[in-house]
Formats: sequence, C-alpha cells, structure tokens
Amino acid sequence: MAAQGKTGLVVTAHPGDFVWRAGGAIALHARKGYRMKIVCLSFGERGESQFAWKRAGATLDEVKRGRRDEAERAADVLGAEIEFFDAGDYPLRPTAEMFERMVDIYRETNPAFVLTHALEDPYNFDHPAAAQFAQETRIIAQAMGHKPQANYTYNAPPVFLFEPHQTEMCNFKPNVILNIDEVWDTKRKAFEVLAAQKHLWEYYTRVGLQRGMQGGRNAGVPMTYGEAYQRLFPTVASELA
Amino acid sequence: MAAQGKTGLVVTAHPGDFVWRAGGAIALHARKGYRMKIVCLSFGERGESQFAWKRAGATLDEVKRGRRDEAERAADVLGAEIEFFDAGDYPLRPTAEMFERMVDIYRETNPAFVLTHALEDPYNFDHPAAAQFAQETRIIAQAMGHKPQANYTYNAPPVFLFEPHQTEMCNFKPNVILNIDEVWDTKRKAFEVLAAQKHLWEYYTRVGLQRGMQGGRNAGVPMTYGEAYQRLFPTVASELA
Amino acid sequence: MAAQGKTGLVVTAHPGDFVWRAGGAIALHARKGYRMKIVCLSFGERGESQFAWKRAGATLDEVKRGRRDEAERAADVLGAEIEFFDAGDYPLRPTAEMFERMVDIYRETNPAFVLTHALEDPYNFDHPAAAQFAQETRIIAQAMGHKPQANYTYNAPPVFLFEPHQTEMCNFKPNVILNIDEVWDTKRKAFEVLAAQKHLWEYYTRVGLQRGMQGGRNAGVPMTYGEAYQRLFPTVASELA
Amino acid sequence: MAAQGKTGLVVTAHPGDFVWRAGGAIALHARKGYRMKIVCLSFGERGESQFAWKRAGATLDEVKRGRRDEAERAADVLGAEIEFFDAGDYPLRPTAEMFERMVDIYRETNPAFVLTHALEDPYNFDHPAAAQFAQETRIIAQAMGHKPQANYTYNAPPVFLFEPHQTEMCNFKPNVILNIDEVWDTKRKAFEVLAAQKHLWEYYTRVGLQRGMQGGRNAGVPMTYGEAYQRLFPTVASELA
Amino acid sequence: MAAQGKTGLVVTAHPGDFVWRAGGAIALHARKGYRMKIVCLSFGERGESQFAWKRAGATLDEVKRGRRDEAERAADVLGAEIEFFDAGDYPLRPTAEMFERMVDIYRETNPAFVLTHALEDPYNFDHPAAAQFAQETRIIAQAMGHKPQANYTYNAPPVFLFEPHQTEMCNFKPNVILNIDEVWDTKRKAFEVLAAQKHLWEYYTRVGLQRGMQGGRNAGVPMTYGEAYQRLFPTVASELA
Amino acid sequence: MAAQGKTGLVVTAHPGDFVWRAGGAIALHARKGYRMKIVCLSFGERGESQFAWKRAGATLDEVKRGRRDEAERAADVLGAEIEFFDAGDYPLRPTAEMFERMVDIYRETNPAFVLTHALEDPYNFDHPAAAQFAQETRIIAQAMGHKPQANYTYNAPPVFLFEPHQTEMCNFKPNVILNIDEVWDTKRKAFEVLAAQKHLWEYYTRVGLQRGMQGGRNAGVPMTYGEAYQRLFPTVASELA
Repeated sequence: MAAQGKTGLVVTAHPGDFVWRAGGAIALHARKGYRMKIVCLSFGERGESQFAWKRAGATLDEVKRGRRDEAERAADVLGAEIEFFDAGDYPLRPTAEMFERMVDIYRETNPAFVLTHALEDPYNFDHPAAAQFAQETRIIAQAMGHKPQANYTYNAPPVFLFEPHQTEMCNFKPNVILNIDEVWDTKRKAFEVLAAQKHLWEYYTRVGLQRGMQGGRNAGVPMTYGEAYQRLFPTVASELA
Repeated sequence: MAAQGKTGLVVTAHPGDFVWRAGGAIALHARKGYRMKIVCLSFGERGESQFAWKRAGATLDEVKRGRRDEAERAADVLGAEIEFFDAGDYPLRPTAEMFERMVDIYRETNPAFVLTHALEDPYNFDHPAAAQFAQETRIIAQAMGHKPQANYTYNAPPVFLFEPHQTEMCNFKPNVILNIDEVWDTKRKAFEVLAAQKHLWEYYTRVGLQRGMQGGRNAGVPMTYGEAYQRLFPTVASELA
Repeated sequence: MAAQGKTGLVVTAHPGDFVWRAGGAIALHARKGYRMKIVCLSFGERGESQFAWKRAGATLDEVKRGRRDEAERAADVLGAEIEFFDAGDYPLRPTAEMFERMVDIYRETNPAFVLTHALEDPYNFDHPAAAQFAQETRIIAQAMGHKPQANYTYNAPPVFLFEPHQTEMCNFKPNVILNIDEVWDTKRKAFEVLAAQKHLWEYYTRVGLQRGMQGGRNAGVPMTYGEAYQRLFPTVASELA
Repeated sequence: MAAQGKTGLVVTAHPGDFVWRAGGAIALHARKGYRMKIVCLSFGERGESQFAWKRAGATLDEVKRGRRDEAERAADVLGAEIEFFDAGDYPLRPTAEMFERMVDIYRETNPAFVLTHALEDPYNFDHPAAAQFAQETRIIAQAMGHKPQANYTYNAPPVFLFEPHQTEMCNFKPNVILNIDEVWDTKRKAFEVLAAQKHLWEYYTRVGLQRGMQGGRNAGVPMTYGEAYQRLFPTVASELA
Repeated sequence: MAAQGKTGLVVTAHPGDFVWRAGGAIALHARKGYRMKIVCLSFGERGESQFAWKRAGATLDEVKRGRRDEAERAADVLGAEIEFFDAGDYPLRPTAEMFERMVDIYRETNPAFVLTHALEDPYNFDHPAAAQFAQETRIIAQAMGHKPQANYTYNAPPVFLFEPHQTEMCNFKPNVILNIDEVWDTKRKAFEVLAAQKHLWEYYTRVGLQRGMQGGRNAGVPMTYGEAYQRLFPTVASELA
Repeated sequence: MAAQGKTGLVVTAHPGDFVWRAGGAIALHARKGYRMKIVCLSFGERGESQFAWKRAGATLDEVKRGRRDEAERAADVLGAEIEFFDAGDYPLRPTAEMFERMVDIYRETNPAFVLTHALEDPYNFDHPAAAQFAQETRIIAQAMGHKPQANYTYNAPPVFLFEPHQTEMCNFKPNVILNIDEVWDTKRKAFEVLAAQKHLWEYYTRVGLQRGMQGGRNAGVPMTYGEAYQRLFPTVASELA
C-alpha cells in the first residue's frame, strides 16, 4: 500500500471541528493506510457543550470527561488516534509545554500533511489560535538547534485549512475539493456520535453535498460529497492538470 | 504513455511570452507525449521587436514575417505546434472572428490544461487582454447552444497563469511550482532562438533558478529549475499531499 | 401599505438567475406591495438550455421562445413583471440602445433598490457583464444632461448583489441575509417552473437552508430560509442595530 | 419609547476616542432612550496627555486623575456612564481579570450593539488591541460553560467599528453612515471638554462635515454631520433598502 | 531652474476633476517651471453641469461651450495649458483616434509624471475609464513599432492617482501627500472659477486641510494644505527617507 | 556631508537577515555618512545555524558565540554598529525589558528611517514578530508620558520593509527599489563572512540582479543591483517624480 508508513496530522481547537470539517479526509486517508493522528487542543467544554451545562450541578471535570469520551468514539469511527492537550476553550490558551509537545509530534510523525483551521474566524477566536499554534510549531520543528541531540528527518508538511462556518466572513478560499464519496457513510456515522448536536447533522450533510456539486462542476466528473480545503503553500509538481 | 491523446493549450499575447514564461511546461509535457498547441495572438511586431525597427525602412509586414519565423522555430525547439491570430499588439485587439476560432480550438482539442497570462499587468495591457480572451472563450465553449450541431465532448480545462515580469505588481501569487529540470536545456535552446533579446537569456535563467530554489524548499526535495504558475480553479483530489 | 408606489428592480443575465438567486426577495417585496420589475438581458438560450438543444433540429428562435415562456411563468409565480432585452448570452453583448433603454427604466421606475449579479465570476462572464451594465446605467441616469428635457426625480438606488454559484471564487462577501421564510413556498414553486433543471431544485433549496441557519446565528433569532446579498454602498442610518 | 431597556456599549482604548469617533452615536442613542455604557480601557495617560506632561513634576497618578475627570465630564455631556479599566496605554495591556470583567459586562448589559476601534491601525497599536479585546470577550460571553451557574440571556451583538485617524492606512471601509445632525451640538460640547486638544476640535468637525456630505450623496437626502462606521457582521433583514 | 524643460501631464475625465483633485499639484509644478498640460477628455457636459441644464432650452453645444470657457479659465489660473478631446461624458467613450492622439502627446511631451484618476470608482464610471485610457496609452507610446518613423526618446513616466470622492469605496490608498501650502491661494482661486459648484468649495477646502494635517503627522513637520496621491509604480531611489 | 548626524536603524530577527536583505542599504547609507545601527534580536542560534549543530557536542552558548562573532564581522564590513538582544529564535520571544530598551534606542538615535521585516511570513514566524516589535516600539517612543523626565525630540521615522524569501507568499509589495550598484562589492563581501551559508551567496546575488533589472525598467535608467523595499507610510513631498 502506497500510504504505508505515512501519517496525516490534524490539529483542531475542539472535538466537533475534526468531525464536521475534516471527518471525510480522516476516514479516507485512514482507509488508504495512513496513520491518522488528531491533536485536539481542548474538549470544547465551555463553548461547545451547551447540552451538558443544562444539567443542574454540572462540573467542568464532568463535562470534560463526557466530551473526551465522545471525541474518542468519533475518532475511533473515523479510524484515527487522538491526543488531547486540555488547553481550555473560550478562550484557548496553549502553554509553552504544549508548544514543545506539538513540536515533538511533528518530528515524531513527520506527517505527509497537516489539517487545521482557517486563519481568520471572527465568530470563534479559538479557531485561528489553533491554526497559529499548528503553523508556528510546524516551523519550529525544522530548527536544527531545537533539541539538537535528536537524530531526525523532518520536512515541514503541506498545510490544508478546513472549512469554517461562514467561509466568506473568514476569508476562506478553497483551492482543493476532496472527493469523500467512498467514506461518506463513515463520516455520517461520526456525526451521529455527537448526539447532542443533532441539529448540525443535516447542516453538515448539506455542506458535503454543496461541495460535492462544486467539485463535480470543477472537474467535469460527477461526485456527490466533498470537503473543501485551502492549501497554504505552493504544490511542487512534475505535471500540470 | 499516460498522456496519449492529451493536449496542452497555451494562449499568449506575444511570441516571447511562451518562451520565457511557459517554455519549460511546453517542453516537459511535449516530452510526456502531450500534443502541445500554442495560440499566439500577435507577432509582437510593435512592442517586442525593437531590434527590427532599428533597421531603416523596416515595414510592419517584414517585421511580422521575421517574428513569425522566429516564433515557429522556438515552438519547434519546444516540441509544440503554433497558430497565429495576427490580432495586433500594443494594443492587442482580438476580433469576433478570432473569438469564434478560439472557441473552436477549445472544442477541437479538449485540452487537459490551458496556460495563459496573469490577470493583471500594469506594465503591459496586452497580457491581461490575452488572459481575458483565453478565459472567456474557455467558458463559451461549454455552451450547448453555441454551434449546437456539433457532436462534442468538452470540459472546461484547469487554467494556469504563468509568471509575469514583476509578480508583486501584478498580484500574481504562485501556487504551483513546476520542476523543469529535465527539460531545462531545451528551454534554454528556445531562449537562444530569440537572438535579439540576448539580454533576457540570463534574466530568465535566474527566474528559473529562483523558482527552483523555492520549489525545493517547499517540497523538501532539491530541484534546480522551476516555473511558477497560479492555478485559478480548485483542484478536485482523491488524496491530499 | 408602506411599500405603496415603491419599485424593486432586478437585472439578470439569464432567466435562471432571478429564480435561484433572487426569487425570495422578489416574492417577498411583491407581497409587501412593491412593484417588482425584472430586466432579463438574455433568454439563456445558448448557455442555460442544454435540454432544448438535445432535441434534433432545434433552432435558436425556438429555444428562445421556450425559455421566454418559462421565464414569464416564473416571474408570474413570483409576482413580478419582466422585460427581455435579447442581448444574447455566452457571450452577453448589450448594445448602445439597450444601454439607453436601461437608463430610461431607472428613471421611469426610480427604484427603491436594484438587485444584480456579483462583480466577479470566473465561471460565467455574462454575470459580471450584467452587473457592470446595471451599475453603469444606474449612474448615467443621474446625469442632468442625459435627455435633459425630462422632468424627473431620480435617486441612484442602493445596489444589492445576489449570491453567485461559488461565492469564494467570486470574492462575494454577503453583508445582508434576507429572511425569506414567509415566501419560501413561492420561491420553490418558481423553481418548479424550470422543469428541465430539476437537479438544481435541491441544490438551491440547500443554499436557502444554509443561509437561513447563518442568518439565525448572526441575529440570535431562528429563521429557516435565507438569501444572501452584498450591499455595495454605505447605508445611511438614524439608529444602529 | 422603543429603546426602553436597550443598551449600547462602547469599548475604547483612550478617552479621546469615544469623544471624537463615537460621540455622535453615543449622544444620539442616549437621546433615544438607550442606556449608553462606555468601557474606557485606559486614561490615555501616556500617549494622549502631552499637555499634562509639560508641567514639571507631573506624576502618572496625577495625569490619570486629570484625564479621568475630563473623560467623566465628556461622558456626562454625551449622556453615557463610563467604567475605566486602567489597563495602561502605550502599550495597552489588558489582564485576565479585565478580560473576565468585560465578559461580565457583555452578559449584564446584553447590548443591542457594540462600538469599538478599527481592526488595524499602524499609527496606534492600542486601537487594534482594544478592538481585539472587545471582540474576543463578545464571543466568550456566549459560552454556556463560562460561569455556568448564571441564568442569563445573551446574544452576541452587532459590532460597529468607528473611524480611525487615517482610514485608508487602516483598511477601514465604512458601510454605515450615521446621521448625527440632531446631536451635533452635544458632540461639539463634548469636544470642548477636551480643552487641551483644541487643535483637534476643528479637525473632527471637518470629519463630521465630510461624512455628512457623503451620507447625503449616498442617500439622496441632505444631511450635514455624519459618523462613519464599518459593520462587521451581516445584517439580517426582512426588507431591502 | 531645475524644472527647465520638464512637463507634467494631467489626464482627467471632466473639468472639475483637475481643479478639485489636482489643482495644487498643477499650480505648484507650474510655479517650479514645469510646463503643465491638461488633457480633459470631456467637458463634463452631461454629468457635471446641472446648473446649465436648469435653463429652459439649453442645448448640448451651448453647455459644452460654457464648460469649455470655464475650464480654460481655471487652467489659466493654475498656470496650465489644456486640450479637450470631446469624448463625451456619462458615459465617457474615447475613440481610436483619441487613443492615437494621446499616445502622441506622451511622446511629444515625454512627461516627468502623469496624474490621473483612481482605478476604481463605483460612483462614476468615467473616472476609471479615464485612468485606463491614460495608462494604456502610456504603455503603447513605448512600442518602437508604433509610428516607427519617429525619432524619439520616451520613458513611461511615473503615474500618480489623485483622490476620488469617497476614497475607501474606491480602494484608493494614498502613499504620497503633496504639500501645497505655497499655492493654496491659487488652487482656491481656481475653485472660484467654478461658480456654479459653490457648495463644493468648502468641501474641497476641508479635503485639503485634512490631508495637510495627515501630512504633518506623517512627516513630523507641520503643514496646512495637502493633496493625496497614490503612486502606482515603484520609486527608484539612491537614498531612503 | 548632508547625512551628518543622521542615523539609519535596522531591526532584524537573525543575523542573516541584515546581510542578505538590507546589506546594500546599510553599506550605502554608511558610505553617505549615516550612523548605521543594527538591532539584531537573536543570534539565529537555533534556526539559522545548521552547520554548527552538525558538530557533535555543540552547545547553545558555543553556537551563539560563533554566530555573534560572524554577525559582528558582517556588520563591520557593512560599516554598521550592532547590538544584540538575545531574545531567542524559533521562536523569537522579546521580553518587556527588550521592549523598553528598543523604545530607548528609538529616542536616543531619532533615526531618519527604520528597516525591518515584512509584516507576514508563513515560512518564518520570527520575521513578523520582529516587524511587530520594531513597529510597536516606534510608536511607544512618541508617548510623552513614557519616561516623561526625558528631554527629547523624536519623530517616528518612515518604515521600510525589506524583501522576504518568497515575496508573493508574504504579501510583500515593493514600492521602492534602492540602487546599490556603488556598494555591491561591499554587500557581496558581507555575504562571504557567512561562510557556512555559501549556497545562499548566489541566490541573493540573483535577487540583487533581478531587482536591478526591474529598477532599471521602472526608472528608464539602467542599473545593475537593487534592493526592494516596501515603504509603509505615505511620503510627504514637495515635488512629484
């Protein structure tokens, strides 16, 4: 299998993000044989857990535990491993130690690509904070003088930004549409793990259908479900088209 | 050969453009077995032929003939066929007939990609005019009701803009760097056909080296010569990276 | 009724555009008592009528007649009157006479607002051509010395751009979301007049639902169906929010 | 009175900002019955108090006291209450406690709108810092899990950016012009509280006149004094124009 | 005098433009010894002559004659010569002959700089049309093969765009502020030639004062009146600052 | 000498930056009599010293010492003095004390210009961090209330951004090309101090040649070597061109 030994890395602010926005890419590459690793910076415990806080007497620890369990099950459905940083949400505030750990993960996995949030999001400041964190550590991992004892080979991987909620407000401009037809059922199953956000299942199903229609039009070949990405750095190619 | 039956289309305002800016892509795809077709909208007879006009008594026809011959030889070196539209240069003013002919070419060749100029160029208004022409006809060729008797299959191909002279002034933002190492010698030979513009040989050799260095850094794999392109429409992909 | 005597003007390149993109606004303002007038620059006869051209022996006149009939019925469903300019499509080429007629329409109707296409659309050059036409004539109508004999009162109306197919590729940035819940059924009925484009009914229903969700989130008040617009000129207000 | 129970919130870096840039909006909405609350993050003690530092032996405390008094009097003229955060200026460095306090204010007041600085200002880094602070806390206040014991209703309000000193350098693009004719005298009186910045009275009077002229042209209805705002998020509307 | 033999060229759509927007630069360079030449593409007869059309029985010729006289007197006050192209206004439609004449003017005058309109203006389409015309002809004049018999020395001059009415709506970003203190009285006298537009005298006086204040702040040296320009092409310098 | 008493200030993240990117400007102004002062925020010890870390047992202190020595020799070749802040690299994290020191340097030197990094660089986050640091301190130094006892005259100097590695990816848009022909040999000698980065000597020589060619074309006067800068704030001028 061509993907033997390849890793795909995903850095998200909250659990919902990797399900709604990148679930197709995760499932698709897992199926191709990639090791898929998610770094989930928080449990979405304050901003993404309305349902849990409606219960009288809910505590932060309890809410975190519930969301962790849910996120682990969703990652499992998608075929990915997951590591939590517990950096807090609303606001997301990663520490210097988390920064170091993220650099180590880049070096350990030497990923073929990294997926993260859009660079701007006026509706959610945790998202650009996560993207900044993913990008800055990606660069630091290149520095020979950072933990210089290590004997490593690391190439900063291409960065793909996944689709934010209101793309135009985030200046998100997709230049890659990923055909996720063959893993759509898996992505949808991961949606259903997020039982408390049932109102979003149909919303993100429609997102997949719209991007599928656009992908089909751009390629001239029909497809049904798509995920949109914005690749940040130039592709180096040996053939056009 | 995978390229069997594929065509690459190039639409330029003047002969120099396809040599300096896209010569590597042309030679590379020709070598891969693509039919490479250049539509050269003018002979560059007024704006790109200083040397010819220095001769006393030079006439427009004479200058055109000289540039046509040169352009044909350069296309030949690169492995491409060439069709001239004789739309004039400085300014470039394509007629309705040329518009129709361009639509026909899209349909006849059903190209795998089209290369043309950047969308803006405050130093040369023929360049964006050619890009507009290439893009508008690319769309018209899709219209079922345009020459409806034709029995055709046509998909609007991806568009790649090649590098203008002062990229930042043209808001040109490359997202593809093509590795042209294996055809560099051919591109350089095509430079040498343009004997009167010898001062540009070294300039565009340096462009190739700078893009090669940048390509190597982006990919983490060394390369020497590159050509930069800006892909306009999203790629539809089945795998990232 | 507050809308007594007010007119809303819609300028589109093709019939489909006023149905898919602005059908909600048209129906909503018609219901409020606005006179709604559509200027449809072409019949979409070449680029939007695939089905018709599949019939052997189809002629341009026949196709135009068919589309005109369809467009008139759709306008009727929405509660609007419609005027065709027959400027051709793919490409759209309005004449000087059409320009004059459009200026007259602005003056005759003195509209409270004008709806038209996005300013850019690399997938369809008729769309920005229509927007340019609508905008330029809107300004000319202000010139005292244009048909100076007329005794008129005309204020250049606010311009709202409706949503293009791939918003991010068109640099379309919505700043108004219109709640069209109360006329959704009417908009959907107009969809169904366009029998040959049945595959788009669901696509544009999803567009309405996504914009509805976004409108609800922005306002903090639930709504189901929305239409997105980009207002071009500043609003003059006497109260914020 | 329609405004009964409504609040308008203003978040500024320095005292001068709410007077020069938003004084009209404050006075106008106060007159309409809004509770107007200003959060003034610093006293402008280091960067906006040249006059005070010219006195030999001036101390920071003294300067702050002077500016506080002045700011309170200006707020009073405009009809607003004011709360100081004392976050320092040049540079402005809000603490975590101030962040929490600001979140509380959003929840307590549930404002109908919030006014703050432009997002960029290369002439004054306190301004975008204040805007970032106002925006980030506006979002955090939505998180159910932030101080979850509270029983509250909060909707993130629309954000209006007021006019910076050199708009084009700040990429400020106004899309709302507020007619402040009926409160101009009040705004001017607030100017006059800032006795030491007399040279700015005429400057900002001219700003008001220019925006008034522009507002009149955009609306087709004369007005004399305007304040320009950039609304950040889409408006949800039930009628266009 | 250093300016001996130097020419400054100004290309405007209407007479008002060179007075309100560039009157300071014209008068200042005329005083320095530059030959100042204005190409005024229309008489502003339809869009800028409201007063004239209010007279019953006014004819186009009459209005043109009136505006020509006024424009000549204003140019005279400023110390410039003026050439009219009579291309019409609202809309401005230059012919191929005018294009040729403009190329000739560039070659004949070989100007040290050219002043023209901003590249965008959604309030007035004649303005960007004039800017496009000025820029395109500036490039054509470089083509050796255009009227090749001529024995000329021509360098495409730097382009400065003058300030449009609503800068932010026109994406106008000034990078040069010209100190016009020493010719302010002359500019103001030219205003007063435009007797029918008296309401604009104060408006453009305020523009001058605001730009003067901004110029003073940027330079750290006081000045009173400024004119803002956007230089399009890079400056070549032998010293910074 | 006109430059008597003038200072040019350079703020860079790493030693290589002032050599490759601004070496020409430094040498040129030093030759004109400017005091040239470089603030070098780190030694580039982690990210720019691959060669040093290849030696077994290399320590951070040793690497820093090596790079300091090299940087001092390069500054010496260019005719500049240099002050190191030792803020660390990869990532660069300046402290509050460094912030204060930088403000003092602005006041002490009252520079005629400041050179620093581009505002964005997705390949190197130290670069925009340095630019932000240089800009923010430049503004703070203006505040009368910052260290108010000082008796100083300070005007915030013009800011010039030097050229980053991949200009288009950094949204770098040069508007000044400095002719460095007369100091090219000196710049090249400074390259050769950086013995371990020999592969970059030719790269940056080509950068100089490309900018020289572009400068020549923009000015219409030949030159060989250039350095590109982006001036951030408007120039105040008393003559155009």
